Order: sequence, then C-alpha cells, then structure tokens
Amino acid sequence: MTAQHVTEFPTAGSAQTTLTTTTTTTTRAGDPEHWTLHPDRALPADPVTRPLAREIYAATKDLPIVSMHGHVDAQVLDENPLFGDPTELLIIPDHYLVRMIVSQGTSPDGVAHMGGAPLDPASPITPRTDHRAIWRTFCENWHLFRGTPTRYWMEHELVEVFGVHQRPSAETADAIYDHLSEVLTTDAYRPRALFDRFNIEVLATTDSASSDLAHHASLAAQGWGDKVVPTFRPDPLLHLDHAGWAADIAALGAASGIDVVSYATFLAALRQRRQAFIAAGARATDHGHLLADTTPLSDAEASRIFDLALGGAPVDAVAAQAFSGHMLFQMAAMSAEDGLVMQLHPGVLRNHDRAMLGTFGADKGYDVPVAVEYTRALRPLLEAFGHHPGFRIIVFTIDETVYSRELAPMAGVYPAMKLGAPWWFLDSPDGMRRFRDTATETAGFYNTTGFVDDTRAFASIPARHDLSRRIDAGYLARLVAEHRLDLDEAVETAVDLAYNLPLAAYAPRALSTPGSEPHVDH
Amino acid sequence: MTAQHVTEFPTAGSAQTTLTTTTTTTTRAGDPEHWTLHPDRALPADPVTRPLAREIYAATKDLPIVSMHGHVDAQVLDENPLFGDPTELLIIPDHYLVRMIVSQGTSPDGVAHMGGAPLDPASPITPRTDHRAIWRTFCENWHLFRGTPTRYWMEHELVEVFGVHQRPSAETADAIYDHLSEVLTTDAYRPRALFDRFNIEVLATTDSASSDLAHHASLAAQGWGDKVVPTFRPDPLLHLDHAGWAADIAALGAASGIDVVSYATFLAALRQRRQAFIAAGARATDHGHLLADTTPLSDAEASRIFDLALGGAPVDAVAAQAFSGHMLFQMAAMSAEDGLVMQLHPGVLRNHDRAMLGTFGADKGYDVPVAVEYTRALRPLLEAFGHHPGFRIIVFTIDETVYSRELAPMAGVYPAMKLGAPWWFLDSPDGMRRFRDTATETAGFYNTTGFVDDTRAFASIPARHDLSRRIDAGYLARLVAEHRLDLDEAVETAVDLAYNLPLAAYAPRALSTPGSEPHVDH
Amino acid sequence: MTAQHVTEFPTAGSAQTTLTTTTTTTTRAGDPEHWTLHPDRALPADPVTRPLAREIYAATKDLPIVSMHGHVDAQVLDENPLFGDPTELLIIPDHYLVRMIVSQGTSPDGVAHMGGAPLDPASPITPRTDHRAIWRTFCENWHLFRGTPTRYWMEHELVEVFGVHQRPSAETADAIYDHLSEVLTTDAYRPRALFDRFNIEVLATTDSASSDLAHHASLAAQGWGDKVVPTFRPDPLLHLDHAGWAADIAALGAASGIDVVSYATFLAALRQRRQAFIAAGARATDHGHLLADTTPLSDAEASRIFDLALGGAPVDAVAAQAFSGHMLFQMAAMSAEDGLVMQLHPGVLRNHDRAMLGTFGADKGYDVPVAVEYTRALRPLLEAFGHHPGFRIIVFTIDETVYSRELAPMAGVYPAMKLGAPWWFLDSPDGMRRFRDTATETAGFYNTTGFVDDTRAFASIPARHDLSRRIDAGYLARLVAEHRLDLDEAVETAVDLAYNLPLAAYAPRALSTPGSEPHVDH
Repeated sequence: MTAQHVTEFPTAGSAQTTLTTTTTTTTRAGDPEHWTLHPDRALPADPVTRPLAREIYAATKDLPIVSMHGHVDAQVLDENPLFGDPTELLIIPDHYLVRMIVSQGTSPDGVAHMGGAPLDPASPITPRTDHRAIWRTFCENWHLFRGTPTRYWMEHELVEVFGVHQRPSAETADAIYDHLSEVLTTDAYRPRALFDRFNIEVLATTDSASSDLAHHASLAAQGWGDKVVPTFRPDPLLHLDHAGWAADIAALGAASGIDVVSYATFLAALRQRRQAFIAAGARATDHGHLLADTTPLSDAEASRIFDLALGGAPVDAVAAQAFSGHMLFQMAAMSAEDGLVMQLHPGVLRNHDRAMLGTFGADKGYDVPVAVEYTRALRPLLEAFGHHPGFRIIVFTIDETVYSRELAPMAGVYPAMKLGAPWWFLDSPDGMRRFRDTATETAGFYNTTGFVDDTRAFASIPARHDLSRRIDAGYLARLVAEHRLDLDEAVETAVDLAYNLPLAAYAPRALSTPGSEPHVDH
Repeated sequence: MTAQHVTEFPTAGSAQTTLTTTTTTTTRAGDPEHWTLHPDRALPADPVTRPLAREIYAATKDLPIVSMHGHVDAQVLDENPLFGDPTELLIIPDHYLVRMIVSQGTSPDGVAHMGGAPLDPASPITPRTDHRAIWRTFCENWHLFRGTPTRYWMEHELVEVFGVHQRPSAETADAIYDHLSEVLTTDAYRPRALFDRFNIEVLATTDSASSDLAHHASLAAQGWGDKVVPTFRPDPLLHLDHAGWAADIAALGAASGIDVVSYATFLAALRQRRQAFIAAGARATDHGHLLADTTPLSDAEASRIFDLALGGAPVDAVAAQAFSGHMLFQMAAMSAEDGLVMQLHPGVLRNHDRAMLGTFGADKGYDVPVAVEYTRALRPLLEAFGHHPGFRIIVFTIDETVYSRELAPMAGVYPAMKLGAPWWFLDSPDGMRRFRDTATETAGFYNTTGFVDDTRAFASIPARHDLSRRIDAGYLARLVAEHRLDLDEAVETAVDLAYNLPLAAYAPRALSTPGSEPHVDH
Repeated sequence: MTAQHVTEFPTAGSAQTTLTTTTTTTTRAGDPEHWTLHPDRALPADPVTRPLAREIYAATKDLPIVSMHGHVDAQVLDENPLFGDPTELLIIPDHYLVRMIVSQGTSPDGVAHMGGAPLDPASPITPRTDHRAIWRTFCENWHLFRGTPTRYWMEHELVEVFGVHQRPSAETADAIYDHLSEVLTTDAYRPRALFDRFNIEVLATTDSASSDLAHHASLAAQGWGDKVVPTFRPDPLLHLDHAGWAADIAALGAASGIDVVSYATFLAALRQRRQAFIAAGARATDHGHLLADTTPLSDAEASRIFDLALGGAPVDAVAAQAFSGHMLFQMAAMSAEDGLVMQLHPGVLRNHDRAMLGTFGADKGYDVPVAVEYTRALRPLLEAFGHHPGFRIIVFTIDETVYSRELAPMAGVYPAMKLGAPWWFLDSPDGMRRFRDTATETAGFYNTTGFVDDTRAFASIPARHDLSRRIDAGYLARLVAEHRLDLDEAVETAVDLAYNLPLAAYAPRALSTPGSEPHVDH
C-alpha cells in the first residue's frame, strides 16, 4: 500500500455532519477480493521482531480454545437453535458496540435506536425494529471503531467466521446483511457447529446460584458435559441492599431445598448450591463486587446484619458493604473446602446512568470503572488462605495501574493467587501488551492464568483467543529480540499461556490434604 | 552520524559544577548550516512504520491551525505591537522553561534570576534586568531540556519561526540573541503577521467573566472577529474562599449591570455575561477546579452558602468545595441552555509553594498535579445532561492513569462528553503517544476532540500543532503496520484529528431542540 | 535462530504437574559453549535504534560503579571472608528469588523449603538444609523467572561473574553447583576481590542509627574509608508503635552517650549520631516510611506524643503516624543543617502476611506496595526546605503512576529535590524504560539521580548497573532516532546518568550559606 493509492480508497464517512472528509470514495471496499485478514495482523511491525513473533505464534494458532470465563447462555448450546438475524446476533447484545454508537449521539435514545427494548412495555420509548436499518447504522459508523478491539474482533468474525469480504460502509451494508442472513439459516452456523469449528475444548458459562442447571444436565445427557460447564455466581445474594435481594434469597431456598431463615441456613444453602454446581462440572465461582474488600466479620455481627435484612429492615450502605466483604472471605473459606476456584472481578461502578438502568436494564454499556485498592483489601483473605493447599483465587482488574503496584507483587508470592487476563476494556491489543509489560517482571508468566476471555458474544470467541495469542507472541518475540529470553523458551511459554495455564488454573482439583485448615489463624 | 564523530560534537555543559563532561567542544553547534529540523522528527524510528507515518503526516502538515483553548492575550492581537526583546518573548513568560532553570538551583531566588518580578515593589528581591544575561543562562542550560517538550518546541521556534541555525550554548548565546533581537523589530514578526504565517484559522483566548471584551470588539471591528474568539472563564467567582472573591463579585456586577445581592442575582449575572461572550463569538467556557465534583446542592443550600460568603462571613473549605461542585452543575445546565461548550480541567494543586505565590504571583511553575476521581464526580452532571442534545462537555486531565480507567469509558458512551487532548505536562511527544495508546481502544478517535493546545506562548503554537500531527501520524502508522487499520482510514483519521474534530467539538451550535429538558430528572 | 530449530531446544519444565509441555528436550542447554551473554542484550531490537544504542552504551559500559544505596553488610567487606556455598550466597538471602519459588506452592512452607530458618528454634517448621537440593529446586524452576529481572541479573552473574555456561535446568543443576562451589573457595571470589573486579568506586551501606560503625572504622583503618561509606537509617526510632521501639531508644541512648529522657534529648541523640555518621564518611540518610507525609507538629504536641510513648503508654496509630511524618520534617531540618542527603522510600506495606513475619522474620518477599500520595504529603517539607541551599532530598517510588503526575512535576521545579531511580520491583528493564518515558519529559534527565541500585545481593551489583546503562542507552537512542536529540548529547547524557549524576547527587557538600534558615517560615 503506497502513497499514490490513498485517494483510491473509500472513506468510511464520519459521525458528525460538520466533519468534512478528505479522501474520495472508490471501489476497494466493495471488492470482495480485498477485505481479508492479514496473516501478520497484531504482530509487532519492526522487521527484527516480526519474524520471531510469527514463529512463536505458529506454535499456538491451532491449539484448542479453553474458555473458562464466558457469558454464553447454556440454553443456546443445549437447544442449538439458529441464531436469528445478523442484528440479533451481532449488534443488539454487544454492549461494546452499542455504547460506541450511542456515544456519537445519533439519537437521544441511542440504546433504543440500536434495537434495545425498554423494560416497561408501556414506555413511550420504542426500540427500532427494522433490523436491516440498525445494521446499516452500524456499517455507516464503521469508522467510529477504528483502533478499538470491537473493530478487530468484528473484522475477524465477518471475514473468518462468516466469509464477508466487503469492508462495512453505507454502500456495502445491505450486501453484507443479505450474505449474513443467508448463512445464518444454515446448520453450519448453529451454536454447536460453530463450537466445534472454533475448536473449543471446554467452555464455562456463568450461572445464578439458584439456577437449576437444567441445561447443563441436558447437555451432559447429550455427551456435552465435559465441554460446557457452569460457574457459580452468587453476587446478588451477597449484597443485602440489592433491590431484588429478598426474592433472590427465596429462590436460593427453593433451589437448595434449605429454608433460609438465618445466617447459618444461608451459608448451608450456599454450600448446597456449590455442591450441586460441582456435581454439574463447575470448576469455579465468580464474584463481581464493587470493592476488593475481604475483611471477615465476627459470626455474631454477620448474623446480626443478615437477620436485619431478612426481617426486611433497611440495611445501610456501610453495613451492606461490610457484609459483602465478609462474604468474600466466606466464599474463600468454602473454596478452600470444596476446591472451586474463586474468581474476583472488582472495580466497576455498574449502571453509571441510573435512568438508563431504569429504562433499559443492565449491561447496556453504562458500566464505568473506578479505582480500587487491592493490597489491604485482599490481606485478610490471603493471610488466611493464601498458602492453603486447596485454595485458588484468580484476580482480575479493570484498572491497569494496579498490575505493577499491587497485583503482580501479591501473585508473585502467594501460592494460592493467580493474576487473571486483562479484563473488559483492557481485553484489547494494547491493553494486553501493557499487561504483559507491567505484570511480567514481578509476577512472571506462571503466576498468570494465561488467556481468559469474558464474552457474551459467542461468535467473537475465536477472534479474542487468536488476538491474545498474537499479542503474547509479540511480547515474547520482543524478549527474544532483546536477548532476554531464548526462542525455545518463548515458544514453550506461548503454548503455556494459550492452553496449558488456563487449563491448569481452572483444573478440577481434589484437596491434596482434605482436612487441612488454613495455616494462619484469625 | 557515526561513533567516530562523537568527540567532534560540542558539549552542552552541565548544570552542576561537580559534573564532569566526557566529550569535547567542536564547531558543529556554531555552524549555521547544521542546526536544522529533521523532516522525520518525532515520527517512529522503525523502518516499517516510518514511511507509513511520513505518508499520513503529509496529509495533515499543511492544514490550517484550529486553536480553541489558548491563553494568548487578545490585546496582543488587537494592538499588534512588536513583541519586545527575545527574553521578554521567549523566556520570562514561559513557566515550563523558568521552572526547569529554577529546579537546578542556579540561584536561591530562581524566578527573579530568570527575570521574574516580585509582586511587591518594596520586596528586597529584585529581578535580574539584564535580558541578554538571562538569555545566556538559558542557552548555557540548554542540556537541561534534553528529552522535554520545551526543547522540542523551542528548537522548532528558533529554527522555523526565527531562522536560527545555531544550537543554543554558552558560545552561541550572544549571536542568537542578536539575531532574534533584529528580527523582532521587523513587521514580519508582529503578532498578526505571525498569525497569518502560522496559518491559524481560529484562535480562542481565555477571558475573565467580568471582561468587557473590548479587545474582541475592536478585533471584530477590524474584521478579525471570526479569527479570534473569547472563552468564558468564571473560576474565581465559583470559589467562595478565593482571596479576591468579593472584589470579583463586584466586578461581575459592574460588568453585567446586575447587582449581585443574592444567589439568584449571581446566576442572572453569570447568564448575562455568557450571553455577552456568545455575542462576541465565544464558543466555550473553561473551568479549572481542583476536583471534578459536580454534585448539585439544593437551591436553598446553595443560597445559604452564597449569602454567608456575600455577607463576609468565613466559609469553611468543605462548604466552599461543595459550592464549587454545585456551580459546575449549574454551568452545565446553562451550557445545555445556551450551547457554550463546557471545558473542565481539574486535578492541579496550584501554587504548591505558597511563599513563591506570595512573592511572585501565580503561574511561575509551582503548580503540581494531584490524583482526581472522575467516575463518581461527573456522574451527577452526566446523568442530568449526558444525553442532552444541546450539551457538550470536554474533559481534560493531567493524570494519565484515568484515560483507560475512567475518562475513555465515559466518553465512550455519553453523547455529550468528549475527551480533550493531553494537557500541560502531558502535551509532549510520549505523553501524546500514551494518550492514544490508553484512550483509543475504549473511546475510539471520534470521542476525542483532536488536538487542542493550551499555551500562553504564541510563537510555540505551530510547533505544538505540528508535533501532535506527527505523533498522531506515528500512532496511526503503527495501527496500519500492525494491520489493524487500512492506510486510507489512517489518513482520513489524521485529518479529522488535526482539523475536523477540533472544529466540530467547538462548533457554534444552535440547540437542536431548544425547549428540551435533560431527559433524566433529579 | 530459526523456526526449524525450535524442537531441538530443551524445555525448562513447568511448575505445576498439570501442565504439559510441547517441545522436546535437547542438548543445547547442556552445551557449555552456548550459554553466553549476547552483547546487545536489553538494547532495543529495531534495526535503526539498536546501532545508536550500541554506540551510546559503548561510552558507559566501562565506567566505574557508584553504588550509593546498597544493603551489603559492612562486615562482609571489613572481614572479607569466603562467601560460603552457592545456595548461601545466591538463593537464601535473595527475596526476589525465594518469593517466586514460594508463589508456585512447591511446599506449604515455601520459605523453609528454600532454606529459610524460623525465628523460633523450637518451631516445628525446619528449614531445608540440603543446599544442593535447594539449588536443584531453583534450577528446575528456572522457567518461572522468564521475563523477570531476577532471570536477567542471575544470567549475568552466572555467566560473567562465575563463568557458568550451562543454562540452569534439572539436568545442569549439579554441574553448575559443583562449579560454583569450587570457585567460591578461591580468593578471587572474596568480597574485596570482587569489589575491585566489579570496578566499584564507592559503595554505601545501610546502617542502624545506633550502629557503632566499627566495621566502617576498621575499613577506614585499612584504607577503604573512601570506598565504603555508611548511611544513616533511623526508621525504627521514628515509629513509636514499632514493637521494639523502647529497646531501640535505649540503644540510641547508649550509642550517642545522650540519655534519651525527652523529645529534646531524642533530637539531640539523633544529631549526635548523624555527626558520628558524617565523621565516618556518610553522605546520606534513608527513610522507609509507609506514607510520604511530612507535616510538622508543634514542639509541644511532638513532645506530648513522645513522652507518652517513652512512658510506656500505648500510642494509637494516628498519633504514631503523625509523629513519624513530623520526624521526616525534622530530619529534613537536620539535613539542611548538616548536609546529609535525605532519601525517602515510601509506599510499601511491609510483611503483608503477618504469620510469615512471625515465623521467618522480615524481608522474605512478603512486602507489597500501596498507593501513596506525594504532592500534598511533601508540601510542608518542600515549602520549608525546597529552596534551601544546603538541603537535598531524593525521592523514590514503587508506584509508577506518580512519576508523571506528582514526582516529576515537583523535581522539575524545587532545587532541593531529585527523583531517584526506579526502585525494587521497578528496577527492571521495562520498569526503567517506563520511568524514563514518564519522568523525562517533565523533569528532564538532570533532575534525576542517575542509576541507584538497592541490593543486598553483592554479586548482582554489576548486572544491575550494566542493565541500567543499557536501558538508558536504548531510551536515548530512541530520542536520537526520532531526531529529538543529537547523538553527542545522548552520549554525554548517558555518561552523566551512569556516573556523574549519582556522584553529584550524593556528593559531600558543605553548606554554601551555613547560617541560612529555610526561607519559608512555619
């Protein structure tokens, strides 16, 4: 691609009518031969490092996918339906994508404009129902995604998964929509066919503590029990000031068969559900608290606060926060008993715009990170269980300043702690690079979990894993190019990061010393 | 440039007499042919990326300058005088430059040593008045600026704007001073001649809320009204514990013609001034608070605090802080009404050394950043006005840790919010690179404003804009080299960042739905 | 090294038995010819920048070592014994190394597994005493250190200092142990022989305020007084809630000959010890507080808290913290008097796992950083002494987010303040790069101290200094390659960073104006 060709390329248009563009539209984006994935994409550009990166990546590109922290619905894999139209599959549920279109203010009710339905059917806001028109809005705004992971993933999905060879634009929107609509009616694009084509070895779903796990049972009955496993996520139960808490407690009672009438029965019901999850193949729990606090309360104090809430009395924010921190400690204690790997994802202020939450519900793109302290917050948990042979905790962050300051130093000494992959907004080419740059020197590679995706978007799973393999190959290649690592070591490490480490981090593990107690008393 | 030439190059000397230098003085710095600007300066070095960067930069290098957040005095452009001697123009008013010389302790009263005058004429400290000697001090200390943006900008100014071809040093100081003194007496170096030569399309000044805008009126009368526009900066009025607050309120009353006797008349007077600014061509307001807090108070509480202050009673720091946060919310409400773009620049502890403030006044280099929280702080404002069709807010930061954690996630969803360019200490080659690296993946390019300079140093404006175009070209070139972006997209984006986006971000905009209210009630 | 060779290279094995490896063992690691240090290691890879970096590095590689902040024991240099076996020298005392092995959970009592002895001889935990077996554990786990500075330093030590040419692995462990054991019995490997071979010009030790400095006296008597100097470290005395505080105060009284019966005699005793240290050649003090707070108390309040503690009354954490901040201010006042350079290292929560502290004592790898504020915390000290001609403070951080936000802006204006080298976990190839990237543009090079190591590991000193020279060469080379600096300037700066700046930063300095007071009163 050389300078004299620039003006032959198309413009992607621009979001604001006041912007003028400087290049002229040509035919390239419409030429099905041209929109392809470059084999070296996301590898370092410099001519010394790239060949090394290519070689390292070659060792990982065809490894199976281990996807231990997904948000794909088990029902989809159990029932294996056709996915619906392109907008239903690729636009409406993708909060990364919707928020970007919303941010450019194409409509005062951006979420509805992108197909989002208000919770209240009587709402005066109506979702746009013309899915082809929504798809056009996306394609016309393709330039907004320049430099973002959404662009990278979507390009991979369209080209590699769906065989699209036209770059999205106002001109190509309809042709792409027609093509996608057609392939999505074929059996090759049903969930399980894609699962196999994606070379997924195992995929974890995320499930409410009160889930009956019926879809997992059905999957197991069909021989898919080792391929699709549940994850125990009790968040709403641990936050007493959560709006639907009483109903969630009732559901817990129903699911566990244990009447939750006290703090003790609450713990018993949680234990029951954990066992049910383990029986269904679960490897891990998942915890999405605002803070990382893990300070235990006395049993008496925990009981007092729990009883207050159970009695319907208002629980103030301080007590609710203290109880949720206490419950993280309890979850760690249970993990030390039963071997479920504990996953912690703090630091996101959910539903920053509460009116949007009220109108459209959660997960529409309005979650915003906040700074969270980990060193003091995790101390109670790590002092109690950090050396426990049966305990494992994987900590994620959305605040990259804590990698070098807090998380890598702790993961670099406590046997029980591993550092998870860059999460959410940081699950991106440069985000992953900065993670390796800032975590590796203190934690090494082997105190990280290797790649863990975190997606609701089933079709993006291979794109995400492939990207992480490329970025890790690039990072390792730099170490080799700087003579800080031998090439054989880099290749071995790349394979471990892509495959062996995530498998090990979430491996079902019987307690090595079942009766052991944490060796630090409190 | 090869190894055997090293000892032929001059030494720049060193700041501390205990340092020894290892190379010997030669003639190169004195050779007028040699000190030139390399055409590829500030572009990435690697041989794959540089040609791409060169090509992208070629598309932006000659675009007009849009300078929407400057601190050049309108009087200078209105009266168009000669600029004075080199030290008056380039040294004394440049706080970046003065602070660096001060930091090396060349004098116990460093600011006076660099020509700074004490506020109190009876002060025993006297400014150094030999401007040639001050210029020599600067040139002798040229090595202190290695790796800093001051060095980069000054090199550009000296070579490109003033035709200097000798590298500053003890040996060349006088010759450079003589050359500069000579050109500064010519009409080609008057402010408006440089304005035209710099290819500035529009430049915003920063003006007190009580300004009569006489210079802007005069400029308009001379046909420069579209080229030089004012910016409404009410900071001192919004901080009740500010020393000169009562006098500032009196000035507001005088300027607005509204007697400020209550909170209600205070708001009315502010509205009057905003309309006067709009009439004079203003596009924006500017707010330099310590914190980003935007929590509104009740009218009653706001009135109570305001009346207290107006009555001359001491207002405690907590109440003053709460009032200033409340007033940011009010400013947003007024911006939603009248369309002025709101600019927010928090996070600087001004006048860290209070004795220096007392002696020399503000803006002498003693301002130091502090960490500031944005996610919770901006929530009230964004919930109320973040989707308002008539509201726009541009947020700047001097703490780069918040790009990926807080600002890009919010700018990436709220239509009203854009992320400003890297500010102050971050307006530097590597600072700008890190900004693109950490903000783009979440906010994209189109939720940023493109380049916005922030300078008092008129002669540095082209250097700053040119540098940002080079850095953006380098960043985009990397995306192209890594096959994450097509070259035509990169070129288009570069042009948008350099020209179209700043123009759009500050465009005068009539309310699209004038009577609309924020769609989120409080 | 090309792709087809990959499978001929050895695997380093992996920490967890669940991991499988994908490459096969070969002979390369066992080939004594092959494990060497690449001459270009840690220089930038790209073909434009590397030759420049090589040239800049050539100017610094053979400069003497100035090591002004070490933790080598003066006794070792005074008595000059043989170092003991390889595990005693290289493994057991290296907390970076031990913590990494511990983190992989090879034993529930990881520290004892790596040879660490419990404090209580009656402890049921016994240290592993088979030093050859410990060495084997290290070599088998060599892969854990990939990408870490431990790997980089150890590789340098083994190859360059000890002549090892086999890469550590299970297979090579015994041969390497035998080789090391042999050379360690020779006089060429005694401390002073290595000191000379390392080309150390001056090395500072760290010494308790109550130390009698007998080893330094003995060294001086042997003509080593200019080569090995003490550093005054009063930390335990300044923290009233420290467990052994009363005993430490008694020791201070004994050492100073001043009976510490009051706050005034406490200050007098500290002054006496500072003079004793100065007489023994000390250039600096060292302060390892949790926070950077320097707020002075009134004399009355300081006396009150001190008397309370001296009387044996419990001092609450708030008062103890306030007193320690006050004492930092007092230390600055004394430094302004006596010229000792003040070093401040805040921001580490020591002994995160208190049970580990109880069992094994401090410095076993359980120290974890926390975020610390500097802008407001240092303000009292800098307002009082920041322009004092006799005062110098060097500030270190383990939280890299403060370089660009807080430390570089302050070091960039206050004459008394310099920014120390990247510390502890940040003393690493990429940590040092990020330091230059984020500090230089605001502070320049000449407000930093150049390289300061911080090691207990005597044999690693040359590796650390060499690495910093390589990283600085690479950073400077990038500036040259981007035409932001001329090559002669880069070479001169590299020499200053490696040698002249640390020498100047810690130079013994008589007060230029001995009777002067801080020019800001409080």
